[in-house]
Amino acid sequence: MSSAAVPESHADLLEKPYFGHLATVQPSGAPMSSVMWYLWDAGRLKFTHTSARQKFRNLEKEKRVAMSIRDEANPYRFLEIRGELESVVPDPGGAFYKQLQKRYGMDFPVLDADVRVILTVRPTKFVAVDGGMTTKERAELQKKLSS
Amino acid sequence: MSSAAVPESHADLLEKPYFGHLATVQPSGAPMSSVMWYLWDAGRLKFTHTSARQKFRNLEKEKRVAMSIRDEANPYRFLEIRGELESVVPDPGGAFYKQLQKRYGMDFPVLDADVRVILTVRPTKFVAVDGGMTTKERAELQKKLSS
Repeated sequence: MSSAAVPESHADLLEKPYFGHLATVQPSGAPMSSVMWYLWDAGRLKFTHTSARQKFRNLEKEKRVAMSIRDEANPYRFLEIRGELESVVPDPGGAFYKQLQKRYGMDFPVLDADVRVILTVRPTKFVAVDGGMTTKERAELQKKLSS
Repeated sequence: MSSAAVPESHADLLEKPYFGHLATVQPSGAPMSSVMWYLWDAGRLKFTHTSARQKFRNLEKEKRVAMSIRDEANPYRFLEIRGELESVVPDPGGAFYKQLQKRYGMDFPVLDADVRVILTVRPTKFVAVDGGMTTKERAELQKKLSS
């Protein structure tokens, strides 16, 4: 299934402290893929990041991103969220970074508060996959099997 | 660490039947991220895919891809492989698909052998991350801590 609303069947993946694999596009046009903490908050995906990293430079040029989150109990169930960077806000005290640490069961000092930022992504499309297939692919397979 | 050779510290992630999150770029320039089976074979990443999917159409236009593989025992250790699609070969009998099924502990009939293809990606760069940081980031942090 793909839609602009969170698929109910996969909403838990946004809530749980799982790990997102975030795809961004480099200025050269080639993609990058990195593992990220995330927070789902009021219809937005939020990330803690630093303005010193390659990913940040990518986002300055190409605001569109995609992230896949795999169910840690069932790798054949995953949610892809496509969206667009909506804002970059400084996190000078590292408060948001600390909030994410807590979400992920961590507690360590923020040593790079000077460059910490909060990235907010507005989702434009969700793709829900189960049994390794989207709803569309499953329907096509069933059609094939019954023909 | 980033290099064109497999980082020894992370080579196990290529061998294990883990799940890769593959980033491709759509014709519009926006990225996609999806979970994939992979096989590391003779210095290449191989995937089973079908020529009917969006990802395949993306690859026809933009051959550069990136994939991140997370250590399932330690989410803060991951390997990113960037590379370029080298070949697309039909898998009409589904033999390669069956080989991947076996690698991932599966055994089911191949119902779409007519559109099954083998994608081969030649790596151009590896980025090894541990403790959530690349080797470069870790060195910078240590410098900061000792100053």
